[in-house]
Amino acid sequence: MTDCNRYILTAHCPGRQGTIDAVTGFLAQQNCYVLEMASFDDRDTNRFFVRIEFDACSRLTEDFEGFTADLQERVEPFQMQWEIHDACRQLPVVIMVSKYDHCLNDLLYRSRTGKLPIEIRAIVSNHPDLEPLAQWHQIPYHHLPITPVTKQQQEQNLLQIVSDSGAELVILARYMQVLTEELCELMQGRVINIHHSLLPGFKGAKPYHQAYEYGVKMVGATAHYVTPELDEGPIIDQIIESVNHSFTIEQLVEKGQDTECLTLARAVKHHAEHRVFLNGRKTVVFG
Amino acid sequence: MTDCNRYILTAHCPGRQGTIDAVTGFLAQQNCYVLEMASFDDRDTNRFFVRIEFDACSRLTEDFEGFTADLQERVEPFQMQWEIHDACRQLPVVIMVSKYDHCLNDLLYRSRTGKLPIEIRAIVSNHPDLEPLAQWHQIPYHHLPITPVTKQQQEQNLLQIVSDSGAELVILARYMQVLTEELCELMQGRVINIHHSLLPGFKGAKPYHQAYEYGVKMVGATAHYVTPELDEGPIIDQIIESVNHSFTIEQLVEKGQDTECLTLARAVKHHAEHRVFLNGRKTVVFG
Amino acid sequence: MTDCNRYILTAHCPGRQGTIDAVTGFLAQQNCYVLEMASFDDRDTNRFFVRIEFDACSRLTEDFEGFTADLQERVEPFQMQWEIHDACRQLPVVIMVSKYDHCLNDLLYRSRTGKLPIEIRAIVSNHPDLEPLAQWHQIPYHHLPITPVTKQQQEQNLLQIVSDSGAELVILARYMQVLTEELCELMQGRVINIHHSLLPGFKGAKPYHQAYEYGVKMVGATAHYVTPELDEGPIIDQIIESVNHSFTIEQLVEKGQDTECLTLARAVKHHAEHRVFLNGRKTVVFG
Amino acid sequence: MTDCNRYILTAHCPGRQGTIDAVTGFLAQQNCYVLEMASFDDRDTNRFFVRIEFDACSRLTEDFEGFTADLQERVEPFQMQWEIHDACRQLPVVIMVSKYDHCLNDLLYRSRTGKLPIEIRAIVSNHPDLEPLAQWHQIPYHHLPITPVTKQQQEQNLLQIVSDSGAELVILARYMQVLTEELCELMQGRVINIHHSLLPGFKGAKPYHQAYEYGVKMVGATAHYVTPELDEGPIIDQIIESVNHSFTIEQLVEKGQDTECLTLARAVKHHAEHRVFLNGRKTVVFG
Repeated sequence: MTDCNRYILTAHCPGRQGTIDAVTGFLAQQNCYVLEMASFDDRDTNRFFVRIEFDACSRLTEDFEGFTADLQERVEPFQMQWEIHDACRQLPVVIMVSKYDHCLNDLLYRSRTGKLPIEIRAIVSNHPDLEPLAQWHQIPYHHLPITPVTKQQQEQNLLQIVSDSGAELVILARYMQVLTEELCELMQGRVINIHHSLLPGFKGAKPYHQAYEYGVKMVGATAHYVTPELDEGPIIDQIIESVNHSFTIEQLVEKGQDTECLTLARAVKHHAEHRVFLNGRKTVVFG
Repeated sequence: MTDCNRYILTAHCPGRQGTIDAVTGFLAQQNCYVLEMASFDDRDTNRFFVRIEFDACSRLTEDFEGFTADLQERVEPFQMQWEIHDACRQLPVVIMVSKYDHCLNDLLYRSRTGKLPIEIRAIVSNHPDLEPLAQWHQIPYHHLPITPVTKQQQEQNLLQIVSDSGAELVILARYMQVLTEELCELMQGRVINIHHSLLPGFKGAKPYHQAYEYGVKMVGATAHYVTPELDEGPIIDQIIESVNHSFTIEQLVEKGQDTECLTLARAVKHHAEHRVFLNGRKTVVFG
Repeated sequence: MTDCNRYILTAHCPGRQGTIDAVTGFLAQQNCYVLEMASFDDRDTNRFFVRIEFDACSRLTEDFEGFTADLQERVEPFQMQWEIHDACRQLPVVIMVSKYDHCLNDLLYRSRTGKLPIEIRAIVSNHPDLEPLAQWHQIPYHHLPITPVTKQQQEQNLLQIVSDSGAELVILARYMQVLTEELCELMQGRVINIHHSLLPGFKGAKPYHQAYEYGVKMVGATAHYVTPELDEGPIIDQIIESVNHSFTIEQLVEKGQDTECLTLARAVKHHAEHRVFLNGRKTVVFG
Repeated sequence: MTDCNRYILTAHCPGRQGTIDAVTGFLAQQNCYVLEMASFDDRDTNRFFVRIEFDACSRLTEDFEGFTADLQERVEPFQMQWEIHDACRQLPVVIMVSKYDHCLNDLLYRSRTGKLPIEIRAIVSNHPDLEPLAQWHQIPYHHLPITPVTKQQQEQNLLQIVSDSGAELVILARYMQVLTEELCELMQGRVINIHHSLLPGFKGAKPYHQAYEYGVKMVGATAHYVTPELDEGPIIDQIIESVNHSFTIEQLVEKGQDTECLTLARAVKHHAEHRVFLNGRKTVVFG
């Protein structure tokens, strides 16, 4: 852990009386000063979620193992699953792209200027096109072309890159390949994708063209965790903007891409700040 | 025509060289002062649309028939279909409702306070519930209950009410009955409906419940012209707002209803100001 | 208290270690089930704020005095100021208006249809114009015309109406008179006002006309608590919308009034749900 | 002129009968096909504005001088000032920056990827910090440090760079120096600035800190033409976003900077597409 003095406790468990007190009582007893706290009790799924930011107390920094052992003892009766994160640590990530660079460019900029608490360890692409952008930012670029024959092997290579780089999140920044079901399940909750959001929902190829034919008055984007159901995983964030009849198909796409950048950046930020919890097919986001 | 001194010319025709000049040249020759003008040339559908607001010239007020005959002669070579509207006239409308009153209340308020250039000639409902609201506003209320047996007859009654009242637009302000295909075709471009807009698009019953299960982060509404394809007619306007995990299903619905009010009011306003043109399955809206 | 089974605890005190644990620990010990909780620790003002929604426990309903006495004992060392509210109770309010009715109409509608947890006990105005609207909703209307001579006395009459009606909040729904400094101080945190928000900030008379001259591209509204500094009290909410060069001054005003309705309704809702805390010249709003 | 086949005619003159017909009649007579047209007649300033996009006709490309001479003859009676622009030409610009790079980075990206029809001929800064970014994009970087003594001379150097590079627009992308009154007047309508928009309007140093102290619920940005009145020039565009009590001053600034990027990019785009007209202290923007 770094010399940063701030920590984040995230936890979830079945909803029942006393859950909040278990964690806040423990932190109080350990003299940890709570800075920000949010909790949510989902009556439908009967799950409780809590996120607490607090200043490090001496015990945590001097005896981390003892601290966490005591925490575990306290919350065990609640079947609580918890994590403690260093609030100042940048989340190591791998970004996957194809040829569109708008989301990649945006993530690189926000990361470089400290607006996004991530450390981009590697960029992986099924095309070579975006390597110069990676080079300027001095980030390793792996070209893993995909064919039906190579797909399985390339996903193994991807997993190797993720593992070697220590990445804890994979960001699909307009990566135009569908991941295999196995990979989706293996990486559950650790892969974020961005895709268009058009009203009404259009399926299949060329969604913007369909939306254009239909005369939509809004375009937007959805950021979600990847699941084996294509583009149907738990939603983290959505942004929508207005358009009108005078938009050409190119202008529609451009407006849509602006929303893709913003939506993906916001979703990644919330994830990296440990504000997002999976809750069945939904998410809880302490924004 | 009233003594208002402002007119609106709307016209559309196949797109070709000279269309704009035909109308602006005519108005110039007649000494009509153009106040506001918008045109659009759709290269895909090859249709030209124009809307011009202008001050009345003496010929128009003194010899309306001669004026329009000359206009027709000038634009006939372009196969132009045109209309001239008194800009200060309130559009006569009939509103249809069931039990939800949020849209009706909003339309009544905006009409009463001059924010919406419509004159509500009658309110038609398949339920008696909203009659007191109509009474306070001194608007005739027609209760036309619908059963599979009575549906055809009641639509005849509706047409009679529309005809007797001189209404030129029917507004479905959360009217929960599907109109028959015949009625939709008969009234093409003269019936505006409001329905929810949820991302991704949910079909079938209880859309808000589906959206809630799905964990959407946005809710909204679409106003559109009614066509035989249920909820798929040409879109006039859409408004979307953000929601989050803490919204109950009731709060989702409430937020959605707020957007329904605003979207419907805006669409009706644009229609009543002759800003909306049908363009195949799309619209052109000079906002 | 009614038979509703849900309560809200709000509290604030100087920020120090253990504040959250004090309240959550107490509720846990009393077997009160926490449904929703939000807290905020303002490092600048060194104030801690917390809002907890919880299901009633048997002790609270059977021995309310004992329950609150124990709570007070527990939180006294923190100098905590707290309140317990019945979550299902409608907040009694008095609305003040002049001649504009858009905000009043919106509040009446939302109150009547259960969208706003308030009970409008009286409407007070310095003009007689809006009495018919009050009558239809069967709400007492008090006409208190203001002149420099009568102002002091009419404010006494207002206080009497507030007191007699049991109102806990006064809503200035476009009330065009400035309250005296004495009244502002007496009612601190219990009077909400709505006023325009135009960029850049225009002072003085006819702000929309100034904004129009200036060519603003946005109009909006701010809801705030009233303080002796005119239109400068702690902000509860703000909403802004886009406009363009083609807006007439009338259209600017109309768009501005739409945002006034929405902003005021949202601020009142947050206040009535006990989500708003005064924090020096700012607010904390658990949205 | 390039081989692009599309042109834009912009014109303005005193408002009077026949203005539209003069330009559309001329284009019709020349067999130029009008694609998009917008006009506005400002009754307050009594100015007429029109923007027409049209396909090149043979005369324009083969005899440009004859074409424009005939146009001038036709519109002279209206005292019309007009320009014809090649719609496919990228506007040459110079960007000025200090140390903040968010707006520069955004403009570079949008320019490089064809989203903004500008060609960045040079970057000028009073600091050396952003030179590496310019180098990667292979754009000349001029470091012109400013002191009270050097200011006049450096503005001369700036004018030389603008002149040598052929730039037609100067973009102040968070350039933290005030331009002299002489420069503002010399470059009227050709310098776009971005600055914060906070409600209510804060003047003076550290505006975000003032806004933070004040507890604003929205932050935003205004793009405007530069005039001798500091930050008061004609507004081209404004964007505003919501914030809340939990935002730190850093988060306020970050959100504000996001809106600065978007607002500046949109204003530059509108200017480069010849959609913006000066109209006294306001603008007309055909969006």
